[in-house]
Amino acid sequence: VIAEAAASLFSSGLLAGKRVLITAGPTREALDPVRYISNHSSGRMGYALATAAVDAGARTTLVSGPVNLPVPEHVQCHRVESALEMLEKCQQLVADCDIFIACAAVADYRPAQVQPQKIKKGDDTTTLELVKNPDIVSTVAASENGPFTVGFAAETRDVLHYARSKMQRKSLDMIIANDVSDSSIGFNSAENEVTVLWPGGEQTLARANKAAIARQIVELIANHR
Amino acid sequence: VIAEAAASLFSSGLLAGKRVLITAGPTREALDPVRYISNHSSGRMGYALATAAVDAGARTTLVSGPVNLPVPEHVQCHRVESALEMLEKCQQLVADCDIFIACAAVADYRPAQVQPQKIKKGDDTTTLELVKNPDIVSTVAASENGPFTVGFAAETRDVLHYARSKMQRKSLDMIIANDVSDSSIGFNSAENEVTVLWPGGEQTLARANKAAIARQIVELIANHR
Repeated sequence: VIAEAAASLFSSGLLAGKRVLITAGPTREALDPVRYISNHSSGRMGYALATAAVDAGARTTLVSGPVNLPVPEHVQCHRVESALEMLEKCQQLVADCDIFIACAAVADYRPAQVQPQKIKKGDDTTTLELVKNPDIVSTVAASENGPFTVGFAAETRDVLHYARSKMQRKSLDMIIANDVSDSSIGFNSAENEVTVLWPGGEQTLARANKAAIARQIVELIANHR
Repeated sequence: VIAEAAASLFSSGLLAGKRVLITAGPTREALDPVRYISNHSSGRMGYALATAAVDAGARTTLVSGPVNLPVPEHVQCHRVESALEMLEKCQQLVADCDIFIACAAVADYRPAQVQPQKIKKGDDTTTLELVKNPDIVSTVAASENGPFTVGFAAETRDVLHYARSKMQRKSLDMIIANDVSDSSIGFNSAENEVTVLWPGGEQTLARANKAAIARQIVELIANHR
């Protein structure tokens, strides 16, 4: 019975024997022991991709920011908080992967200083100094003998334009564009509607639940890598 | 059977017929459509207080920031995101309450401007302008014929000193101090260990799960109001 169950999991076999590394969820950038900057990523798309990769026969690893989701079966999950922690974990794991999917909504900036004590309320206005976080997906894409690297572009306007330009600038093999200005799809919602772009073409995946979108993305990755 | 169940809920009767309003959870202060500043409050302490208030016979209302907790039975829950939304909802509801417990971890500051589009990554460093949020608990405490008002002081050092000074400065009737530098209690943990202070005295509640701490706080409120 166990062998049968395992066999059905790997039924499509599109990524049989491949090793897939996926980042998911938001990062949290600490201001002090209690406060942080984060974003509305639920992690659902990344977790759905992990499930779809397992179903396609891949050995699948998640590097996940803080989310409220169960780890999919047969997936090894490493939990991290900040962008720096996520980068470090990905750099440890990326040498052993064939396909890297950067689905996490990594904070672009972090506070320049993390205060060791809770910041006391003081003046009526204040400024927060921020520094740019490392770019995880382009770091991976630039590595020698790196994996097939897939990025995401969550945008609120000129979505396809920004996505294609991001793919080229970061030397990605594929990018998945979605319009997060529509709150019925994308961040924190059950459904998604994306356009998958690669150097020679693009394909729009009609609105569907994230599991169905994830299966189609995995199929496109298998066909284009 | 239903009458029996209801009777057991109101068994202590310490707050029979009283109306209790409780804020809980963090607030989220938007930077743009996807990013926000928040904090590690899980909402558990506020939700435990709501359950304890119901058990003590009170008509209980929660104003809750974004948390992953079920609404306790017999509690009316209003969901909000930002400090401004929480203040507005509390001001609508406070005229009809006898006891106000400000358990939410309200963000002290919010971004001065909410960008309508996702902010693009640009310079290596940037600054974020922040403005002070309104102080919900002192606004309520200062209102004419206001309720018995209970605040919280989550501190990482000089906990009792800051708590008593906060109680006096904000004209609170009671304040509950906890040390959030100890990650085994307080924010996002199942247990808590607090000191309850009022103008004439104080009492430390030994480490216990939040339900037990909440029942003792409700008893102290009933005895001192």
